[in-house]
Amino acid sequence: MRVMGVDPGLTRCGLGAVEGRPGAPLSLVAVGVVRTAAGDELGARLVGIEAGIEQWLDDVRPDAVAVERVFAQHNVRTVMGTAQAAGIAVLCAARRGLPVALHTPSEVKAAITGSGTADKKQIGAMVTRLLRLSEMPRPADAADALALAICHVWRGGAQHRLAEAVARASRKGVRP
Amino acid sequence: MRVMGVDPGLTRCGLGAVEGRPGAPLSLVAVGVVRTAAGDELGARLVGIEAGIEQWLDDVRPDAVAVERVFAQHNVRTVMGTAQAAGIAVLCAARRGLPVALHTPSEVKAAITGSGTADKKQIGAMVTRLLRLSEMPRPADAADALALAICHVWRGGAQHRLAEAVARASRKGVRP
Repeated sequence: MRVMGVDPGLTRCGLGAVEGRPGAPLSLVAVGVVRTAAGDELGARLVGIEAGIEQWLDDVRPDAVAVERVFAQHNVRTVMGTAQAAGIAVLCAARRGLPVALHTPSEVKAAITGSGTADKKQIGAMVTRLLRLSEMPRPADAADALALAICHVWRGGAQHRLAEAVARASRKGVRP
Repeated sequence: MRVMGVDPGLTRCGLGAVEGRPGAPLSLVAVGVVRTAAGDELGARLVGIEAGIEQWLDDVRPDAVAVERVFAQHNVRTVMGTAQAAGIAVLCAARRGLPVALHTPSEVKAAITGSGTADKKQIGAMVTRLLRLSEMPRPADAADALALAICHVWRGGAQHRLAEAVARASRKGVRP
């Protein structure tokens, strides 16, 4: 399963794609950021974010997209732009009929490090180890996008195994 | 000048278009709402908002779009959806190269009623009078979208008159 993670933001929108399934080694597909200039008008910035994400979806061709769930309690100065970038990521994926999942920062931290309160450095170190990279992806937004994608592979995997078990039982004529 | 106002929201996104210029009677072009079901997935809702706004832009062909500026201090339960609907309105307009303005609720209230703390009923009553309608536009989101459009005609108008004065002075060889 190929998952594209999005760590939303207007100035830096982190994007990272991984290929994998639960219980098997993960591999890196792509990692990077889409940037827009803080001095540009909001409309131009949102158009830039949309174009960047569309290009990534064309190149990466993910099976699913995982976006960080943004809360109103986040940094008040930037939260509106973050919410709007997240909305555009969800919109771009949904327009293509791709499944979209929203994961909270603490869900991602817990999935990757075992602790919902892990810091950026810990996340980066675990992403580097899990993808067997020679160095930590930078900036942190790019590493966070990979963490989202990995979290989704593992969480989506649990649901996927359940669906498979139900399908197997149903093929055997057993009603779940 | 034809202005389309957007009162953003996921459940009800108010849309209203007016034609006018400062110092002359305003006229109603169209008013309504785009609705999405609260039980639908976020992706489907954002796709619905985008499709609704695109249809309106095709039909109304505005010269400018005015969107309510959303603040993090708004209702915490709905503010993320409101911000995302606003972002999509800005995106749709910017993709067409239309000028986009963000006005705060108190700027709109002050422009329409003279008071930055006017309530919904006062806004609705003034919109009804200014557009010479036989009854108040409903729901309130639709009336608010018209108020945004009117606010923009008047505020944009002041800038437009300044630009005209500068152009006239320059034609006469006077440096502003």
